[in-house]
Amino acid sequence: MFSLTVVDHIMVAHSFRGEEFGPAQRLHGATFVVEAEFRAAKLDHLNLLVDIGLAKDALRTCLAPMDYRNLDEEAAFAGQNTTTEHLCFHIHGALAAACKGGRLGPHGANVAAIRVLLRESHIAWAAYEAPL
Amino acid sequence: MFSLTVVDHIMVAHSFRGEEFGPAQRLHGATFVVEAEFRAAKLDHLNLLVDIGLAKDALRTCLAPMDYRNLDEEAAFAGQNTTTEHLCFHIHGALAAACKGGRLGPHGANVAAIRVLLRESHIAWAAYEAPL
Amino acid sequence: MFSLTVVDHIMVAHSFRGEEFGPAQRLHGATFVVEAEFRAAKLDHLNLLVDIGLAKDALRTCLAPMDYRNLDEEAAFAGQNTTTEHLCFHIHGALAAACKGGRLGPHGANVAAIRVLLRESHIAWAAYEAPL
Amino acid sequence: MFSLTVVDHIMVAHSFRGEEFGPAQRLHGATFVVEAEFRAAKLDHLNLLVDIGLAKDALRTCLAPMDYRNLDEEAAFAGQNTTTEHLCFHIHGALAAACKGGRLGPHGANVAAIRVLLRESHIAWAAYEAPL
Amino acid sequence: MFSLTVVDHIMVAHSFRGEEFGPAQRLHGATFVVEAEFRAAKLDHLNLLVDIGLAKDALRTCLAPMDYRNLDEEAAFAGQNTTTEHLCFHIHGALAAACKGGRLGPHGANVAAIRVLLRESHIAWAAYEAPL
Amino acid sequence: MFSLTVVDHIMVAHSFRGEEFGPAQRLHGATFVVEAEFRAAKLDHLNLLVDIGLAKDALRTCLAPMDYRNLDEEAAFAGQNTTTEHLCFHIHGALAAACKGGRLGPHGANVAAIRVLLRESHIAWAAYEAPL
Repeated sequence: MFSLTVVDHIMVAHSFRGEEFGPAQRLHGATFVVEAEFRAAKLDHLNLLVDIGLAKDALRTCLAPMDYRNLDEEAAFAGQNTTTEHLCFHIHGALAAACKGGRLGPHGANVAAIRVLLRESHIAWAAYEAPL
Repeated sequence: MFSLTVVDHIMVAHSFRGEEFGPAQRLHGATFVVEAEFRAAKLDHLNLLVDIGLAKDALRTCLAPMDYRNLDEEAAFAGQNTTTEHLCFHIHGALAAACKGGRLGPHGANVAAIRVLLRESHIAWAAYEAPL
Repeated sequence: MFSLTVVDHIMVAHSFRGEEFGPAQRLHGATFVVEAEFRAAKLDHLNLLVDIGLAKDALRTCLAPMDYRNLDEEAAFAGQNTTTEHLCFHIHGALAAACKGGRLGPHGANVAAIRVLLRESHIAWAAYEAPL
Repeated sequence: MFSLTVVDHIMVAHSFRGEEFGPAQRLHGATFVVEAEFRAAKLDHLNLLVDIGLAKDALRTCLAPMDYRNLDEEAAFAGQNTTTEHLCFHIHGALAAACKGGRLGPHGANVAAIRVLLRESHIAWAAYEAPL
Repeated sequence: MFSLTVVDHIMVAHSFRGEEFGPAQRLHGATFVVEAEFRAAKLDHLNLLVDIGLAKDALRTCLAPMDYRNLDEEAAFAGQNTTTEHLCFHIHGALAAACKGGRLGPHGANVAAIRVLLRESHIAWAAYEAPL
Repeated sequence: MFSLTVVDHIMVAHSFRGEEFGPAQRLHGATFVVEAEFRAAKLDHLNLLVDIGLAKDALRTCLAPMDYRNLDEEAAFAGQNTTTEHLCFHIHGALAAACKGGRLGPHGANVAAIRVLLRESHIAWAAYEAPL
């Protein structure tokens, strides 16, 4: 199995519901460094998995509606705690749609799975992976 | 599949038996930066995989009996070479027991697998992963 | 010149005044990974610059009033844009006071300068350094 | 499953055929930091997966024919775009042959799979993994 | 003293003249991860050292003529070995000119010094710093 | 001012005298990732600060007597706590002697200062710098 990973980041505010979260129930924020890994069983005739330029653009397009925002006020997250785990899931969904919608070009059809990893600090991160 | 990873570290002395180890047969030491990855197929109603505070505490509790020690003198490792690989396996066992013993709270029951990765330097690391 | 550096982090929300900031005028947030470097011309009789445990505690104490908070609502930052540069300056002031106030123990008297560096992402950081 | 990873790097020139590559069609270059991960279901009686010295040597031997070279002129890559993905595949093949050829010693027989990951920058990398 | 650092990278081919360079006399290449540090004694009324957007743009503008190129064929480097050290010096000159030419906006006038650091691998880097 | 940095590492056992050290009074160990920075005001006619191969060799030669050893038993450290700070100082002395002794070749005469930084973990490091 091949994989190609591109990296971007977002800077967001949010808060959590649930006493398990302790001080993180207060409005706070995070830089999430986002690693998007595209997996495919084969490369094309040019030895590409996906066009890395399109992959970066697709990731940026998925992240833009979140970047420099307070996620507590975004309709896309209404009723959801925007934990690092959930943001991975959310971004995975957006990237999967981008693949299926042709926004990664014809290579997108070869993508068998995507893994999205978000680093919230140097000592904690979460990920979500699933086949397309 | 979701995952959540927390990071801690230990500073230990040890030596190895077996001429394959060359100079590492002498008493020496290592900083092991420990990444503990918890995997689960789903999140709870708060969008948590496990409580990150409990995960950090559980990892610290597993590492404490090793930290700032000479592993050659620890009963837990009697008759074992404490290679990076074996320490991954050992810590995995301790974390799995913590999950099963309820020390990660009710979320622990959702943990399907754990991966423990130990970085021994910037150019070498080992890992052990297994389902619970 | 000797130096000793310890690392911690904070997760905060904030917004900026001034159109130079573009989308960062919206309420957003950041993880700041904080590196506090203590400099001294000599070590003590035990070969210590400062007690690393006290240094970590002092840094945590300086960061705690900011951590998991919306800096726009904190009195300490009233009328100030909490840019990464300014946060470095602010934390520097708090650490310098900790040194002078004896919270780093007797070694604090040897600290000639402090440098505070805040990483806001993998591709941007700021720092402030000054003698005590 | 256990794994052991060693790291090395190469500095190469190359160019790509295909307009998808845009400016990368020009002769340019890259530092590839190479992570070679060896996987095995069990350790030996010394708690080793593979001899880390032999693993480093095997990796260096696989990389040497590429290092400090223009890949466009290397017979091993004739007719191939030397994308990061393809280089992972190529190095995987060489390491797999090293395992099977006994160059990792008797432990090589336990290696069930190899994953080769090449970092081309701080924001992009590729990998190839396959069983032996 | 305050500082603000932004990061970008280039992927270049080149070769070196001089037998000291050994195998690096052959045409090869490198990814240089470039850290540009701007230093100033004070911040403006918005608590900015320089506008980070302008700083990133200025760095990209300085790097663009080198990116995805064979430096052996670039007039800007005629008769020069493009060592990591020299590239730091070259980029420093270009950034200093950008500051003085107003391309960092009015904040550029406050920049007292610039440090340019190029990482050629995970185990080697060079830097050049000088006042403006 | 130019600088060139090379990286290596050592894995050592040691213990500390003095109750300030708490649990670190026990025999334990560390991986120290060592960054050696050579500074010079100018480059040679080939645009080199020092020959990077000689710099790596000199660093390895300085580190070899410590690597895979128990520093408590090494004559070079008799009566000294081998804190990270002191090890920086010790290695600085050895590298300075290497420069002055010609082991970095003729370029060594241009080296104006050396900085040695030792990372003991991902969250703590020390350094020592001084002119030659």
